[in-house]
Amino acid sequence: MTYLFDDPSAFAADAVAGLVASQEGLTQVHGGVVRTSATPKGQPALVIGGGSGHYPAFAGWVGRGMGHGAPCGNVFASPSASQVYSVARNAENGGGVILGFGNYAGDVLHFGLAAQKLRAEGIDVRIVKVSDDIASNTPENHTDRRGIAGDLPVFKIAGAAIEAGADLDEAERIANRANEATRSFGLAFDGCVLPGADAPLFHVEDGTMGVGLGIHGEPGVRDEPLGTAAEVATLLVDGVLAEEPETGANGYRKRAAVVVNGLGTVKYEELFVVYGHVARQLEARGITPVRPEVGEHVTSLDMAGLSLTLVYLDEELETHWLAPVDAPALHRGALPARTEQARGELWAPGADPIPEATEESRASARGIVGVLDLFAQVCAREEEELGRIDAIAGDGDHGQGMVYGTRGASRAAQEAVADGAGARTALVRAGETWSESAGGTSGALWGAALIAAGGVVSDHEEVDDRSILEALIAGIDTIAELGGAREGDKTMMDAALPFRRVLDERRDEPAAAVITAAADAAREAAEATAQITATLGRARVLGDKSKGTPDPGALSFSILMAELGAHLG
Amino acid sequence: MTYLFDDPSAFAADAVAGLVASQEGLTQVHGGVVRTSATPKGQPALVIGGGSGHYPAFAGWVGRGMGHGAPCGNVFASPSASQVYSVARNAENGGGVILGFGNYAGDVLHFGLAAQKLRAEGIDVRIVKVSDDIASNTPENHTDRRGIAGDLPVFKIAGAAIEAGADLDEAERIANRANEATRSFGLAFDGCVLPGADAPLFHVEDGTMGVGLGIHGEPGVRDEPLGTAAEVATLLVDGVLAEEPETGANGYRKRAAVVVNGLGTVKYEELFVVYGHVARQLEARGITPVRPEVGEHVTSLDMAGLSLTLVYLDEELETHWLAPVDAPALHRGALPARTEQARGELWAPGADPIPEATEESRASARGIVGVLDLFAQVCAREEEELGRIDAIAGDGDHGQGMVYGTRGASRAAQEAVADGAGARTALVRAGETWSESAGGTSGALWGAALIAAGGVVSDHEEVDDRSILEALIAGIDTIAELGGAREGDKTMMDAALPFRRVLDERRDEPAAAVITAAADAAREAAEATAQITATLGRARVLGDKSKGTPDPGALSFSILMAELGAHLG
Repeated sequence: MTYLFDDPSAFAADAVAGLVASQEGLTQVHGGVVRTSATPKGQPALVIGGGSGHYPAFAGWVGRGMGHGAPCGNVFASPSASQVYSVARNAENGGGVILGFGNYAGDVLHFGLAAQKLRAEGIDVRIVKVSDDIASNTPENHTDRRGIAGDLPVFKIAGAAIEAGADLDEAERIANRANEATRSFGLAFDGCVLPGADAPLFHVEDGTMGVGLGIHGEPGVRDEPLGTAAEVATLLVDGVLAEEPETGANGYRKRAAVVVNGLGTVKYEELFVVYGHVARQLEARGITPVRPEVGEHVTSLDMAGLSLTLVYLDEELETHWLAPVDAPALHRGALPARTEQARGELWAPGADPIPEATEESRASARGIVGVLDLFAQVCAREEEELGRIDAIAGDGDHGQGMVYGTRGASRAAQEAVADGAGARTALVRAGETWSESAGGTSGALWGAALIAAGGVVSDHEEVDDRSILEALIAGIDTIAELGGAREGDKTMMDAALPFRRVLDERRDEPAAAVITAAADAAREAAEATAQITATLGRARVLGDKSKGTPDPGALSFSILMAELGAHLG
Repeated sequence: MTYLFDDPSAFAADAVAGLVASQEGLTQVHGGVVRTSATPKGQPALVIGGGSGHYPAFAGWVGRGMGHGAPCGNVFASPSASQVYSVARNAENGGGVILGFGNYAGDVLHFGLAAQKLRAEGIDVRIVKVSDDIASNTPENHTDRRGIAGDLPVFKIAGAAIEAGADLDEAERIANRANEATRSFGLAFDGCVLPGADAPLFHVEDGTMGVGLGIHGEPGVRDEPLGTAAEVATLLVDGVLAEEPETGANGYRKRAAVVVNGLGTVKYEELFVVYGHVARQLEARGITPVRPEVGEHVTSLDMAGLSLTLVYLDEELETHWLAPVDAPALHRGALPARTEQARGELWAPGADPIPEATEESRASARGIVGVLDLFAQVCAREEEELGRIDAIAGDGDHGQGMVYGTRGASRAAQEAVADGAGARTALVRAGETWSESAGGTSGALWGAALIAAGGVVSDHEEVDDRSILEALIAGIDTIAELGGAREGDKTMMDAALPFRRVLDERRDEPAAAVITAAADAAREAAEATAQITATLGRARVLGDKSKGTPDPGALSFSILMAELGAHLG
């Protein structure tokens, strides 16, 4: 369990502050850490991150030859888009940004949102998703797998390529090649207890092991009796070698980087015992282990488990795997001396001024404040019912998330308007704050939708009926793109896409009438989701339980759109 | 618990093998590891060790700027004297040896035995005992305290001094100064489960913490309710600062090296949260933390706990604390390039030839084999009873240990005699193997006694009655010196010292009669130990339970001496 904390909700932030206090090479910025020295001018910045609770991943890997910065989310939760944006903005120095993270829906969403914002500001951003866990999808769908301890070699190799002079294209290419060549397989023997929680996230029965379990307790492939270290090693080696490439394919020459990763409570001596078997078994199959790393690299608090990662090396990947690195939790060799540049001023949220706006647009912005205020009232009214529905197959926090999100968005828009913001800026600020305040996937998607809607309107013109419809469409398209859900997946999209179809067909009619009609379609579709079994996100685990209950996200969408139609009418 | 192992009794050895397989810089030798490159000619060799289960301590600290070698005992058990000897012999290259270890009776004994043997071979050996745990004794008795995470800074500083050119005197001086300046205080929240065991070594009640607990579950000062991270940090800081020196004393200038050490299951983020408080509290008291180390350095398998260590630095200690180091588990800065010397042949036990012997001495050696064979039979006969007595206040393995020890000693002497050994060599080989085979304190003491007895006789002369008595006295004196027990402590010495007094008074009489008389005195004294409460070793914990039962070590000593007297008569 987690024994030492003060306010559990501040645990991740307290840990980052303590880490930074203990490390001269790290500087704290809003949302995470960056190197204390500035990124050399024109060098791509490797920004790697994810939830907290996985140290050394990811902040322990920020240093020369590896990461330039790490946004640090809450325990086992993606950093918010604004955290990622802040760290990237502080790390970037003219060479563009690689956002590297393990492939999880929340991270895809929030890093994606941050990328959108960075790109809108003219920064070249590439996304590298690590997807090494063979238990989470089929070989054909390697890039759809989730990321576990493969984060270590992929980011190590990418960082070394950058240190060796790779530009953004080249660094992206090498990072993706590293991910293509990386395979991991994990086991868990017991779950971990989050700070302040009174029960483990999951439990594995004594004497058994959860085969293929993820680093947050995502379900495994199967349970098996816990074997000897030799048997466990065989299981792991066989699993990872099931996808060994042909010799010669992609330059593979029977040499592999090896990571034996402990998740927290399986200790070093045990990992060494397992590594002894892994080394012998690899050698028996003619594979040379290259610079193995045996220890705790991607942990899950005090979870009991381990994983084996192999990177099927070619010459290029091996060079970067072996290159020197100097981060708090990963050191190899000696980097050539270099005069480090001191950092300029640190960027922090709120540092950007409100752009000039016309009186017309400011009037529209006041209208937007009115709508957001209405949304906050409606969500407060519906909170209990939405929570009740969500609790059936989810964690029951949808109502609360919508209340927090709409309340934050309304307040942020109000403040921006008081400072003279036009419609665009009011929507963008509202969207940023919605994500921050609500947390979770639906908050991030609503926030992204508002920001995208802001992109359609301006700080100079009035928001007319036509642009209201266009803004709504832009918002929904963004949710579709970032959320990755399709109709029938039992998500908000089951209401939003029928809604969008009505808007699209009747673009030239008065907004109030169109929205009201579209909201009716959305409501009907939302209620029809009761017939669907959930397949995405957390609901995937509890899918069957969701049958008979509508999707709370689809429902809240249709309710808010009906209120919007009535308000405009 | 420990999840991954094959044969539990081979766990420590398997872990060392796996560690060495994963690290290019380490080479396995009998009993532990040494650096892959040779110790530079004339450089003192820093040999640091202790039980396994504490990784990175100690093998993870073998590398340039720190250790030259590490003997690796079984889990939580001192390495045997022959392990220490082997590692030291392989590490030594003309500059002498520092044997560094935490101050525990078993380590003091086995490292001391190894030092004896090394010195007998003309190697200069210094002993540095780390004694940082303030909970284990009073400030006046700092050097009698046990060693915990202070091992890290003391050995780091000693290794840096050696890397900087210190000779043996200087390295010993600096290492002892580092220990003088180092204070630690620890807490435990729960115990660990040894490989193959089905229950934890100890248990701390939920929601409480064992204050002052040692790294093997030695009893703490008191139990307290588990507080917040801030409260825990305050407790630790206050504890360690209770022994802050006056500013200026020993060059102290309000600068302290800091180690926040996790014992296994308290994870990195928790340690960082605590460190944040520690740093603030030190600064509030005007103390500057210097190059803190926050992580797992001296673990106890998966024990839940942490400790805080401060080294009150002067300029010399700070220089060595900050110096570069390159070991598997500790890296700082960059060491200047150096052409490493390849190792010569590795030394292994049995590599030394049997010295020449006269026929007279070989005849005596055959007599010694006969005595040891008799001892093995007697111990087999008494095994159950000795075990039963030992189980009352000990771990019940005394009978088994005596059987293993005498059997091994008898076999080793027999083999040596078959290869032409004289009396001295037969006794020395028998003693070495007794320690190895029996394990534990009493095995080591019996082994040391046989080796010391061997020192009194020779490979050239017959062993006459006079030298039998002298050999027995030498053996008992060695046990007294190495074991450190006094009469009344309820140990073997309660029988051995009365026995020795009879020998001393009647040195000139026939051996058989003197030994028989002395054995009677020993038996009487052994039985009288039933009235004593044990105060040393493991029995310390269960002292009260021992009242009413004689000490099994005293009893087995008197039984064997009675058999010896009868055999010689």
